Amino acid sequence: MAFSIIRAARAVLHVTDLAAARDFYERVLGFVVTEADEGHLYLRGLEEYQHHSLLLKKADRPAVEAISYKVGSERELEELYRWFAARQLEPKWVDARSQRAVGRAFRVQDPSGLPLEFFAQMTAVERLLQRYDLYRGARVQRIDHFNCMVADVQQAYDFYVHGLGFACSEYTETKDGKLWAAWLHRKQNVHDVAMMNGKGPRLHHIGFWLPDPLSLIHACDVLAASGYGAHIERGPGRHGLSNAFFVYLRDPDGHRIELYNGDYLTSDPDFPPIRWDLDDPRRQTFWGHAAPDSWFEEASVVLDVHSGQPVEPKEPALAKVKPTFLI
Amino acid sequence: MAFSIIRAARAVLHVTDLAAARDFYERVLGFVVTEADEGHLYLRGLEEYQHHSLLLKKADRPAVEAISYKVGSERELEELYRWFAARQLEPKWVDARSQRAVGRAFRVQDPSGLPLEFFAQMTAVERLLQRYDLYRGARVQRIDHFNCMVADVQQAYDFYVHGLGFACSEYTETKDGKLWAAWLHRKQNVHDVAMMNGKGPRLHHIGFWLPDPLSLIHACDVLAASGYGAHIERGPGRHGLSNAFFVYLRDPDGHRIELYNGDYLTSDPDFPPIRWDLDDPRRQTFWGHAAPDSWFEEASVVLDVHSGQPVEPKEPALAKVKPTFLI
Amino acid sequence: MAFSIIRAARAVLHVTDLAAARDFYERVLGFVVTEADEGHLYLRGLEEYQHHSLLLKKADRPAVEAISYKVGSERELEELYRWFAARQLEPKWVDARSQRAVGRAFRVQDPSGLPLEFFAQMTAVERLLQRYDLYRGARVQRIDHFNCMVADVQQAYDFYVHGLGFACSEYTETKDGKLWAAWLHRKQNVHDVAMMNGKGPRLHHIGFWLPDPLSLIHACDVLAASGYGAHIERGPGRHGLSNAFFVYLRDPDGHRIELYNGDYLTSDPDFPPIRWDLDDPRRQTFWGHAAPDSWFEEASVVLDVHSGQPVEPKEPALAKVKPTFLI
Amino acid sequence: MAFSIIRAARAVLHVTDLAAARDFYERVLGFVVTEADEGHLYLRGLEEYQHHSLLLKKADRPAVEAISYKVGSERELEELYRWFAARQLEPKWVDARSQRAVGRAFRVQDPSGLPLEFFAQMTAVERLLQRYDLYRGARVQRIDHFNCMVADVQQAYDFYVHGLGFACSEYTETKDGKLWAAWLHRKQNVHDVAMMNGKGPRLHHIGFWLPDPLSLIHACDVLAASGYGAHIERGPGRHGLSNAFFVYLRDPDGHRIELYNGDYLTSDPDFPPIRWDLDDPRRQTFWGHAAPDSWFEEASVVLDVHSGQPVEPKEPALAKVKPTFLI
Repeated sequence: MAFSIIRAARAVLHVTDLAAARDFYERVLGFVVTEADEGHLYLRGLEEYQHHSLLLKKADRPAVEAISYKVGSERELEELYRWFAARQLEPKWVDARSQRAVGRAFRVQDPSGLPLEFFAQMTAVERLLQRYDLYRGARVQRIDHFNCMVADVQQAYDFYVHGLGFACSEYTETKDGKLWAAWLHRKQNVHDVAMMNGKGPRLHHIGFWLPDPLSLIHACDVLAASGYGAHIERGPGRHGLSNAFFVYLRDPDGHRIELYNGDYLTSDPDFPPIRWDLDDPRRQTFWGHAAPDSWFEEASVVLDVHSGQPVEPKEPALAKVKPTFLI
Repeated sequence: MAFSIIRAARAVLHVTDLAAARDFYERVLGFVVTEADEGHLYLRGLEEYQHHSLLLKKADRPAVEAISYKVGSERELEELYRWFAARQLEPKWVDARSQRAVGRAFRVQDPSGLPLEFFAQMTAVERLLQRYDLYRGARVQRIDHFNCMVADVQQAYDFYVHGLGFACSEYTETKDGKLWAAWLHRKQNVHDVAMMNGKGPRLHHIGFWLPDPLSLIHACDVLAASGYGAHIERGPGRHGLSNAFFVYLRDPDGHRIELYNGDYLTSDPDFPPIRWDLDDPRRQTFWGHAAPDSWFEEASVVLDVHSGQPVEPKEPALAKVKPTFLI
Repeated sequence: MAFSIIRAARAVLHVTDLAAARDFYERVLGFVVTEADEGHLYLRGLEEYQHHSLLLKKADRPAVEAISYKVGSERELEELYRWFAARQLEPKWVDARSQRAVGRAFRVQDPSGLPLEFFAQMTAVERLLQRYDLYRGARVQRIDHFNCMVADVQQAYDFYVHGLGFACSEYTETKDGKLWAAWLHRKQNVHDVAMMNGKGPRLHHIGFWLPDPLSLIHACDVLAASGYGAHIERGPGRHGLSNAFFVYLRDPDGHRIELYNGDYLTSDPDFPPIRWDLDDPRRQTFWGHAAPDSWFEEASVVLDVHSGQPVEPKEPALAKVKPTFLI
Repeated sequence: MAFSIIRAARAVLHVTDLAAARDFYERVLGFVVTEADEGHLYLRGLEEYQHHSLLLKKADRPAVEAISYKVGSERELEELYRWFAARQLEPKWVDARSQRAVGRAFRVQDPSGLPLEFFAQMTAVERLLQRYDLYRGARVQRIDHFNCMVADVQQAYDFYVHGLGFACSEYTETKDGKLWAAWLHRKQNVHDVAMMNGKGPRLHHIGFWLPDPLSLIHACDVLAASGYGAHIERGPGRHGLSNAFFVYLRDPDGHRIELYNGDYLTSDPDFPPIRWDLDDPRRQTFWGHAAPDSWFEEASVVLDVHSGQPVEPKEPALAKVKPTFLI
């Protein structure tokens, strides 16, 4: 490869009510608002020195416009563009002037149908890591990962690992050796993106990193005190997979957010990917709790990067299974 | 009153397998074993300077032999005995020599049918609060409270508050003003005993105090790592009622244990009891999570203090209600 | 005794700059401002349902006007007044109309020269314990205790324990058996007041209770981020005595505040007071850290309840000792 | 570069008493002992899947035999060897059979005189990250970094950054623009190695990563309870530099260990290194606490990789400065 994808960098989401979103993300969860106008809300975590990691756009219905990765340099961005083009995936450039704070970017639908974006530069802003006086709510530090539902996990795995150079930290297999889900990373923790078998392409959730487990508990308390109790969908709990302490929330438009802390370093190229059996009760929740049906079934619709229209999800390649002991 | 009940002091439980119980309470949860023999296991928390707060006795089937309170002095113990006797409740003395480490005690069935015990003295042992090198698992500090299911909460309330001098910190009422549950205390936090409307008399759970919220999370991790994941019944979560951060466990015999941290001081006689509506979704779990059916339905059988036989539970006075939004 | 002192209830401090004080206590530490006017700032913790536990008054120089305890009832307040009067301590009534939110009170100089206040009633206000959306800074929950430097600890001990009915939880003795310091309580934790040998009478610090250890660490971070780093005088650390996790701060007027979490229950009348040797290095800081000289030498001046003038401190009865290993 | 150094991988330390060291590292701090024999103790953290990250060897006096980095592959190891050889630094191969669990390695004195080791392979062992039942003490997760005192920081910086391809995350400068200290990384957090101006070459400390801040506090409690209170040299506190929550310990041989949690992600090549002024009081301790003299003056002697003899430290290039406000 002549390109280096650095990490999951930002998500561009459509939301129907920016004021409601701002209350949820800024006041309750403690995201920092870098900028806002009538149609946009640019949010970042306390550790982030770049303009935003979450861009919310006012729209008629909730959707995912882009799942965006940062690339090491402009030169590598071009290489990557050519790489996609050579595979007939029809990447298209997005001019720097057409997006706030982001350099030249390109967008492309990946083979699973996910709307990807790649860029190399974003405007630098003040990093607030040590402005503890501004900490509130969940004390969100930074974007961590995307989790996607795709109809064919093996295909997605091959594309990201053998094509884009992601490494696999953990994965789930069915009894007969089919790949059910995979956790893939470029930066050195468990994942930048996970692919799960399901009706897709859809974005299941965006994970944000917290500084410690008590910030996660406090986030639940603040959510409940602020009238967002019903927005806590699952957890808090410990994932077997990734070892993270987690809670899943639904934002006012139904987009799913994971607050996440406590995975591990994956710096070594000889790190042996961890295999989980689909039937291991500790895989999803180490403590053995059941996730609600909504967590398995609901996810955000993604848009076509060319038409801007919703991509119709397909039924998954592997039969949907959620045995009662599979939690 | 010429007597002062100090606090919830110990539970005497029957268990079918002492080795299994010891693994659960000592190795996993981190209780201190003060003494053990073929038929008994005496357990205490790290802050406790008295011999035990949990006595497990080998028996053929699980049951609750005694819910035990400490009284201020021998003189007051006698006053309290006379008080019960005057109400035709037939207290009976238990000689100091017949129980390990406990002074003279008496036992009595309260009007709800719960098997109570009162004593004034217990053997002092080394307090391990600052032996941090011995901390493990949940780092259990001390017994905190009992929670009982009774068929008539109003009757129990009247007996404990107007008779025994307990104070009420919080309570739940139905829409038509019936008392559904009450949190009653002698020591200065939310409760020494709670009474909940349900098939009773039964012991719903025993609460133990932890030093901080992360000990509770770690307890879940240790339980799961030790193969006890299925013993985590509910939580972790925040109670609206009491404000405690909690998790409910089932021991190997099915007795329910609550790990508990974070309630508040109730020292003032003018503290206004907090009223909760039975339908308030934040009452049971502040974050709005549903408790499993088992938590509402299952509880430990209690024994008759005279016959030693199980007390047959009665249906509750108020209709059992567990609307889906009542969590 | 025909009176029951409930607990340490409020401090009345003189400060020179109310705006500076408000920034420190409200914005940085997270106290709740119940009311404020040109001359007064009424502060409380998140768990407190009474009007205030800290009253700051604008004055020309910093001082302690009153160390105030709550009594069980108006009748007991009168008994306690008579008790002081009978000992020629000249208590004086303060009319309810002359103090905001406090019922009838009386003030009296105790035999050590400390300006005490007793009252039975304070206006109830909204309790914000579950308004987690309002939590900030140290998340102060409630007032916990006073710590006083007095010239004769034995005399103070005798007065509080044998006279006012306080219980002793822990104490420090010199090698030759002289009482160096004592931790005394009415409510059921380690102390409502501690008496330490030193130039006195002076108020060494006021302790406030936090919900967990991480709130204490976060408070330090917020203090530093807000430019108050130099106000962190000692800690964080663990006290051997009391077992509390602590940090000592100096407010803008130099009054010392302890943020405090993690002591233990002292409900039982047979609790054996814990003796510490003055030379035990783990007594003051369990981890063995040295406290700065300022912590040993500086304390707040107290006022005469009759004249309103500063009380001249006397040299302590026991020689001041601060060996390098005595930390 | 044709080589990729992955991360700080292990330290090889000489200690005089293996039993004392084992008590300190295993029983108190919670390191995992992978293997031990009469002359060696192989330790690792709970997250580590490789054989060890700390090798203690029995010797007559304490010293640092090797500061060791992992390289991406055998091929890259050879490239790196040649790179050193081309600079007349005389690397020497260490045969795989001569070291337990480590593949072929080479050792070399760097221009500052530090004894480096590089290897590409280490025996894999069971990863205990989710064996929470084995967690104890500080719950050490993994090695994080080395901190070295060198006589010429600018020289060291140039060698590591321009030669070995480390990136700089943070640095300290004197008023006149001289480089006083630098934090350099290969893996994606603040550092794998820091270079500080001082009498050197010496190893100042080895940093180990903890899962959360409370594990660090608990480590202090366990140290004190185990009689190691005097081994807590500095902290706990927050570093301005790196943002880490830290505590410094001295092991039984005086080697300094840092327990460390809470820095940040440094994945991006355009991350702007953070500059600190040598006189900024928040640089070393964000909360403003003074570090003890020992922390500035004492460090571990390093050995010559060829002779095995101690390397005589040289006075630093920049005048030693430790103003009282420079903490």
